[in-house]
Amino acid sequence: MRFRVSSELFYRVEGPTTLLFALKGIETEGQKILRESLHVDPEVPVDAFSVGEGMNRFTRIQTSFSGQLQVRYEADIETSIRLEDGHELLPHGPGDLSPEAITYLFPSRYCQSDRLRNQAFDLFGHLVEPYPLATAICDWIFEHVAYRQGSSNEKSSAVDTLEERGGVCRDFAHLAIAFCRSMNLPARYVTCYSHLLYPPDFHAVIEVFLAGTWYVFDPTRLAPLNGLVRIATGRDAADAAVCTIFGGSLLNGMQVICNSLDETFTPINWDTLQQSHQAIALL
Amino acid sequence: MRFRVSSELFYRVEGPTTLLFALKGIETEGQKILRESLHVDPEVPVDAFSVGEGMNRFTRIQTSFSGQLQVRYEADIETSIRLEDGHELLPHGPGDLSPEAITYLFPSRYCQSDRLRNQAFDLFGHLVEPYPLATAICDWIFEHVAYRQGSSNEKSSAVDTLEERGGVCRDFAHLAIAFCRSMNLPARYVTCYSHLLYPPDFHAVIEVFLAGTWYVFDPTRLAPLNGLVRIATGRDAADAAVCTIFGGSLLNGMQVICNSLDETFTPINWDTLQQSHQAIALL
Amino acid sequence: MRFRVSSELFYRVEGPTTLLFALKGIETEGQKILRESLHVDPEVPVDAFSVGEGMNRFTRIQTSFSGQLQVRYEADIETSIRLEDGHELLPHGPGDLSPEAITYLFPSRYCQSDRLRNQAFDLFGHLVEPYPLATAICDWIFEHVAYRQGSSNEKSSAVDTLEERGGVCRDFAHLAIAFCRSMNLPARYVTCYSHLLYPPDFHAVIEVFLAGTWYVFDPTRLAPLNGLVRIATGRDAADAAVCTIFGGSLLNGMQVICNSLDETFTPINWDTLQQSHQAIALL
Amino acid sequence: MRFRVSSELFYRVEGPTTLLFALKGIETEGQKILRESLHVDPEVPVDAFSVGEGMNRFTRIQTSFSGQLQVRYEADIETSIRLEDGHELLPHGPGDLSPEAITYLFPSRYCQSDRLRNQAFDLFGHLVEPYPLATAICDWIFEHVAYRQGSSNEKSSAVDTLEERGGVCRDFAHLAIAFCRSMNLPARYVTCYSHLLYPPDFHAVIEVFLAGTWYVFDPTRLAPLNGLVRIATGRDAADAAVCTIFGGSLLNGMQVICNSLDETFTPINWDTLQQSHQAIALL
Repeated sequence: MRFRVSSELFYRVEGPTTLLFALKGIETEGQKILRESLHVDPEVPVDAFSVGEGMNRFTRIQTSFSGQLQVRYEADIETSIRLEDGHELLPHGPGDLSPEAITYLFPSRYCQSDRLRNQAFDLFGHLVEPYPLATAICDWIFEHVAYRQGSSNEKSSAVDTLEERGGVCRDFAHLAIAFCRSMNLPARYVTCYSHLLYPPDFHAVIEVFLAGTWYVFDPTRLAPLNGLVRIATGRDAADAAVCTIFGGSLLNGMQVICNSLDETFTPINWDTLQQSHQAIALL
Repeated sequence: MRFRVSSELFYRVEGPTTLLFALKGIETEGQKILRESLHVDPEVPVDAFSVGEGMNRFTRIQTSFSGQLQVRYEADIETSIRLEDGHELLPHGPGDLSPEAITYLFPSRYCQSDRLRNQAFDLFGHLVEPYPLATAICDWIFEHVAYRQGSSNEKSSAVDTLEERGGVCRDFAHLAIAFCRSMNLPARYVTCYSHLLYPPDFHAVIEVFLAGTWYVFDPTRLAPLNGLVRIATGRDAADAAVCTIFGGSLLNGMQVICNSLDETFTPINWDTLQQSHQAIALL
Repeated sequence: MRFRVSSELFYRVEGPTTLLFALKGIETEGQKILRESLHVDPEVPVDAFSVGEGMNRFTRIQTSFSGQLQVRYEADIETSIRLEDGHELLPHGPGDLSPEAITYLFPSRYCQSDRLRNQAFDLFGHLVEPYPLATAICDWIFEHVAYRQGSSNEKSSAVDTLEERGGVCRDFAHLAIAFCRSMNLPARYVTCYSHLLYPPDFHAVIEVFLAGTWYVFDPTRLAPLNGLVRIATGRDAADAAVCTIFGGSLLNGMQVICNSLDETFTPINWDTLQQSHQAIALL
Repeated sequence: MRFRVSSELFYRVEGPTTLLFALKGIETEGQKILRESLHVDPEVPVDAFSVGEGMNRFTRIQTSFSGQLQVRYEADIETSIRLEDGHELLPHGPGDLSPEAITYLFPSRYCQSDRLRNQAFDLFGHLVEPYPLATAICDWIFEHVAYRQGSSNEKSSAVDTLEERGGVCRDFAHLAIAFCRSMNLPARYVTCYSHLLYPPDFHAVIEVFLAGTWYVFDPTRLAPLNGLVRIATGRDAADAAVCTIFGGSLLNGMQVICNSLDETFTPINWDTLQQSHQAIALL
């Protein structure tokens, strides 16, 4: 699938500020950047680098003036996915996990899996197979947490979301990751462009490591899982925030677009996957 | 400097369990393993791997029996350090940090720097130079937090320690890391063997990234900073725990030793460094 | 019913200390003190007073020495109860509550009903009648929280217990009270002597205000509900602790006894009440 | 002093709702209601009662319609104060407190003095005399917490405010009360009308029990302490909220006025009291 993505962000900056952006699609085995461009207005020092074995491409912008800053990214990106029969995804334990997945069992800032262990076992302890377990976790969150703007903030964590029972995609993802790790399923956070997400915005979903592969799940059920373009991957939003600001800046406008460049796009949604017992991997 | 280190741990295991150990000294530019051995009794499947760019060497042990498990590691390890004049360590901001340090600015499970920002600025906002800042943070913790066994547990975080005003080396390190990150100093957690630590045990200290190098600080002031042998490095104890247990195991005995193999060992303590305004790096 | 109760507490005191005890049975319409005595050794200043409309009788002890303090209370107390058909307890709302019950709708230190509202509605929102609602809350806690010494401390609150899924009678009571208040049922904390509680100790249960009367519930199901002797009543353990210490004292021994003085005692347990759909009030 | 106070509140109600208001000035030894009136539009069932030994006068309103509700209270109220030399206020301990003050040593929902004890002793442990101690607590809060709308919400507690370092009068009061209780000074929450408060609103201050009398302190320093008209008194905002809503109502407008009816009003502010080392009591 090919997508044309763009994001335009406006900040009010006050003096010396560093803005660290994760806006660009990354290159993976199955995701290719066909073309891309980044414009920053006014012209300020910009550098770029990758961390986390290439799973995050950071753009760093330094400002020293006070005023309006505009950042605009546009790209055409090709993605590919793989579908797998969920029942084929055999259980594995921490004992046979590949090293790359081990650290995604550990608790992180917004996914305090160590604190949620007893609650997770109470809710999901009867499930043994990994695919039904990951599915049950995401279903539970969809059914018990309300998607509600304004009920959370940038400090909200999985523990808070479980209490508050409300949040946005970031909060849904954090709670799902925390529950997965509590149940010994490695899980990580993905920031992405998302086709057919309404209203258009950046999106956050999770990946769960099942039988050696990372499969994508979205407890919000807000957008098709084959319409995602990966921007950043990490333990939680601390690693994969669209923008981390050091200094005095305030976002005061944003527009995000993700359109399909293919003639037809057949959305693969949660219910499609449920009926066919399939899991989907972003390659 | 050369050290003979050993650790012997006893667990009561109950059925299928995975134990993930960080016991072994790691190899770095300045730290060399001269010889080492690991014994596990009874004989069970053991594998080993490194993650985090070699900064953590994990030993993974699988048990399926119920009973007593003994793990014993012994090694001779050579370490080296570098001393630097603290006043030469010029300020840098997030804008000129090398990518490897960037992620150590982010909050983590036990170091919620985002939640401590206002308190950190209140306490330390008058300090501009990085070396005095890192020093002031560690001094404040030494003076305002009591070293007290039993006042914290494995879920305790920097926020808890700041409230409780008590903890052990792990808690001191977490709070120091959180304050550093709040003040835009990258900081990370180091688990180590520690010569002249009394009573003998594993130790936890922190490293702060100053002018391009990681310097070690110990807010507990319990042991000389040139007597440390690095075992594991990470964002916090979630990454660098001596043992992470998946399943039903209970530690019921431990002995840790770190002796000098050199004829003389001249300890470099906190007060030595303070008087000479020096910072110390583990190479 | 008549009970002979006694409690003997030993403290190590260090210099000037005030100990505020709630040890004595209180007098109510249905609970009469037949005889009682209090011994404090060594002899120190003691005064006594009641607060909260007589629902708490405090004994205040002042020490200025360092050493061992012994406090011993003995009493014969007559109690009476009333049984009511649970289905007769019609719903009432905050609009027709008597003023005395209103404050028991408010959140308190260890019963943060305002924070648990969304979780309470998720679990119990389908229940309308007050007796089934209070019963369902206590049943849920019995089934989802483990009675476990050492998993909580004197700072643990309902929010902590819901996360930890473990605690003692104090924690069970706090969580039950918080859930009740979240669902607009006034609820309060009762410290009592408890016949047939094993091992013998003080006990904590809750009272819920249903159709104009306070009915007693015990989410631990550890002791018969007609074997309780009321000591103190309050919003939570902050009001009704057996001992609140101001200064340096440490409990180092305790013995609590509650024996029946009647020839026969027919315990009314949770299952008896459930089968007969009855609620029980301490008069 | 005589004040003309009024408050007008507008709610959007949705179906059956109970609103519990503390809007009316209360009668005390030194505070007299000269005249008062309450209007509710549309006409709905209203009742009134006092709790807490008359320190709270509740007005309860029941609605069953959906639409706009207006509540308007107007009164002329006479108040009196007493000034005392702060140095005359001798220390007392929990051992010689009058029973009425004892419960104000206990932690409450928004004033978790048990959790703040170590921090309070660290900050204020060098102070022995009660008046300088209460003053130091309020000064510290004024200097280290920013008065900032929107940085807190109705669930925010003293622990949160200490972390966030921002809040409104309610949050300042909660933190001050918690610190006082941590230091064994009984302290309570007062909701009031406040002359010369800008912008006009309800106000929250604290009372501290010093040498047998409740003295008023205001860590916000926003209004003169002789311009307060007492509405409600309690352990914290859980007891003394202006409006507690059971059901679906939303405040969508409010106007509060407190004018002096005297020819001259000489404000007694924090700095006046500081210079003369005086404490002020609302009679």
